[in-house]
Amino acid sequence: MSQTDETGSDGRREDLVSDTERRAPAPSRRALLSWGGAGLALGAAAAGGAVAMARTADEVPAAVSGEAVEFHGPHQAGIATPVQDRLHFAAFDVKTEDRAELIALLKEWTEAARRMTAGRAVGEGAYGGLPEAPPDDTGEALGLKPSRLTLTIGFGPSLFGRFGLADRRPDALVDLPKFPGDNLDPNRSGGDLCVQACADDPQVAVHAIRNLARIGFGKVVVRWSQLGFGKTSSTTPEAQTPRNLFGFKDGTRNIAGHETDRLRKFVWVGEKDGPAWMTGGSYLVARRIRMHIETWDRTSLQEQEDIFGRDKREGAPVGKAKEHDEPFLKAMKPDAHVRLAHPDSNNGATILRRGYSFTDGTDGLGRLDAGLFFLAYQRDPRTGFIPIQRSLVADALNEYIQHVGSAVFAIPPGVRDKDDWWGRSLFSEEA
Amino acid sequence: MSQTDETGSDGRREDLVSDTERRAPAPSRRALLSWGGAGLALGAAAAGGAVAMARTADEVPAAVSGEAVEFHGPHQAGIATPVQDRLHFAAFDVKTEDRAELIALLKEWTEAARRMTAGRAVGEGAYGGLPEAPPDDTGEALGLKPSRLTLTIGFGPSLFGRFGLADRRPDALVDLPKFPGDNLDPNRSGGDLCVQACADDPQVAVHAIRNLARIGFGKVVVRWSQLGFGKTSSTTPEAQTPRNLFGFKDGTRNIAGHETDRLRKFVWVGEKDGPAWMTGGSYLVARRIRMHIETWDRTSLQEQEDIFGRDKREGAPVGKAKEHDEPFLKAMKPDAHVRLAHPDSNNGATILRRGYSFTDGTDGLGRLDAGLFFLAYQRDPRTGFIPIQRSLVADALNEYIQHVGSAVFAIPPGVRDKDDWWGRSLFSEEA
Ligand code: HEM
Ligand code: HEM
Repeated sequence: MSQTDETGSDGRREDLVSDTERRAPAPSRRALLSWGGAGLALGAAAAGGAVAMARTADEVPAAVSGEAVEFHGPHQAGIATPVQDRLHFAAFDVKTEDRAELIALLKEWTEAARRMTAGRAVGEGAYGGLPEAPPDDTGEALGLKPSRLTLTIGFGPSLFGRFGLADRRPDALVDLPKFPGDNLDPNRSGGDLCVQACADDPQVAVHAIRNLARIGFGKVVVRWSQLGFGKTSSTTPEAQTPRNLFGFKDGTRNIAGHETDRLRKFVWVGEKDGPAWMTGGSYLVARRIRMHIETWDRTSLQEQEDIFGRDKREGAPVGKAKEHDEPFLKAMKPDAHVRLAHPDSNNGATILRRGYSFTDGTDGLGRLDAGLFFLAYQRDPRTGFIPIQRSLVADALNEYIQHVGSAVFAIPPGVRDKDDWWGRSLFSEEA
Repeated sequence: MSQTDETGSDGRREDLVSDTERRAPAPSRRALLSWGGAGLALGAAAAGGAVAMARTADEVPAAVSGEAVEFHGPHQAGIATPVQDRLHFAAFDVKTEDRAELIALLKEWTEAARRMTAGRAVGEGAYGGLPEAPPDDTGEALGLKPSRLTLTIGFGPSLFGRFGLADRRPDALVDLPKFPGDNLDPNRSGGDLCVQACADDPQVAVHAIRNLARIGFGKVVVRWSQLGFGKTSSTTPEAQTPRNLFGFKDGTRNIAGHETDRLRKFVWVGEKDGPAWMTGGSYLVARRIRMHIETWDRTSLQEQEDIFGRDKREGAPVGKAKEHDEPFLKAMKPDAHVRLAHPDSNNGATILRRGYSFTDGTDGLGRLDAGLFFLAYQRDPRTGFIPIQRSLVADALNEYIQHVGSAVFAIPPGVRDKDDWWGRSLFSEEA
């Protein structure tokens, strides 16, 4: 069996190292895999098992649950990609002060991401080379399908104060202002790096973050992480709109993955936007928003519908019949969420929402620690999230929610091919 | 449209109350639904949309993901039922001291459970009767399939000190002894009541617990809850064995849902076991077990395999070739987990495992708060969990795990029919 065919014909992850091979005291194959040198040949094989899809253009065709999403392309996957069912999001702090070590890690991460998104294990042979060595891969995703795993990396403002990156910080990567009502927990905010793992199987998403954390041991440390389970928006308009924990359809008016023009206008950083290394990238604003569902559940239907400016059953805007009817903002209460968030109330400001519900057990008062892990992608937060959130200061919804975590990241462009790596345009002199 | 057909032909949850009906100032239909009186007629319809399956005997046929699992039967569903993908488990404390109020709540819960497991919303009309009233159902599961939801109730030792139940406490419902190494958090332990919600869609499981908590507002409060995402055992032997967060296949040797004889011998409380109200019930031991995955991931493959007494790839016992080969205990290290947990090392003690992996973010040290939410069902904890756990005091695995939460519950028998309710045999004089 060739190494180019590590994903079985049924799409399941497999380990092709035979028992004899594994037990034989051969040198660990890990060295072969590290970036540079012979290991590159393996990279070429990573697309094996991936759904054939042309991500050279902006189009992102829908993939079937279970299959692989192509890792390479002009933009990172996981933004315009049809939203997967589960999320594991991690913010990391960089512990090393050594620029070369950080670059080496980013290269190692890229290779691992390339393999995992294709449904393969980290490292050559899922169980390591020698019984005396820890296995290369932690193993819990063996036998699972690629599950449309996407891994998306981002760089936080704090990274740019170090590693000689100060003059490379994009103007658009602003520190978010403090908004009225914010109650931010520093232990759930910020981070030098982030990785968003989305997959249709949570074990696959958790496995991916864990293995990246493990590869980064001693160089980076997880600052905070968030598991999300019910996607609260959709980038595939033909799909049924998911409902959030307040029971309302969420994501009705969003940018769809196939809307090339709107993606270019509102999501992808253009050539003229600068800096050059960000072309094809985006900016991510992540907000952990606690939702007080016990209070909400005691609110009348009328009040709930007034707050959103949409009806609960159908999701139609006030006075309209169908979910996808154009909202007539003046028919809504002045403090309705949809009215205040709508582009027409914000000089056209438009973001791509990709949030997930979360439930992190119960707080000390027996209330569910539940809410929305809000993820917004945009071409520039100064003309995206920030003005919309400012407008939402008047939002009737604020009585029922509170922002408790916050972070912003520059999302570099996609990894072009097997020789490219996460952050190359940022760290290389050429770009 | 008749009320007997609330689940649409495609199996999706639907709301059949028309817009006009909903908006009209008609009296709320909630009264009709409360236990006793006309509401009972609705109960008869609850099986609509359920997979036709004979749970009058012990057999539990596999259901297809998305479908409904029958709520009624001699045993509660969610024990021998093929393990669903996701878990939301909640322990409640009872706040009321009024026995009649508790009974009324159990009846209301039963009716809600009957509806939700059949893929229907809580209450008549998913959005309540009047716009002035809060909706009966919180709404976030509307449009989702029944997803094989099961709801399983249990009664904790602390309940029996109250409500005149002292002489009804089963001898088998012992307080668990303190085991060496336990580091139990009281905020993750105990509880007067528990409800285990299992479903293939986490939003469906979370919705169910939330709506029960809401119905119980003022009478019960959630003491702690746990979300589980990767089942770590299987009760369907033909299915691929899932892997736990240490990357090993888990659940290889377990009691299968169709093994009527072993279920009768090891899981269901028999007529002669007493008390009579528990006949057909079971006992649940729940342990929140933290797994130190960072340490584990730095352990050699050989060491990992020695600790379990099985190989990582195939899951075969030491010295054997195939996962389902009979373990030869003497070939294993004396402190191997499988050797110590095996019935032959414990006078035949056998439990049904139904655990789930969890990842609850990160602790203050950047380590994943991850592990196994261990759920064991048995006929008697004194001959089930307790002796096995005593034997596991010597387990090599203990270097990598720690028990941080613990609870034990008496699981009453199944709800027989539409007139029956959770706990009837406990609270009624007849039994
Ligand atoms: C827990 C907090 C939130 C909840 C429950 C929520 C819920 C909703 C719902 C139900 C809709 C209507 C359906 C749709 O078009 O998607 C909506 C629309 C929208 N929301 Fe939110 N949202 C929350 C926070 C935010 C935040 C923080 C922002 C941005 C700062 C935001 C921006 C938007 C936008 C841009 C729309 C579409 C408006 C339109 O074009 O009609 N939302 N949201
Ligand atoms: C984090 C903690 C634990 C992990 C990771 C773990 C993992 C495993 C694994 C991988 C197996 C072998 C495959 C199988 O037959 O299922 C196994 C078997 C078993 N475990 Fe555990 N286990 C844990 C805790 C426990 C506890 C607390 C108990 C009971 C007190 C227990 C009881 C058993 C039993 C009865 C078997 C089957 C033994 C046999 O019949 O061969 N385990 N466990």
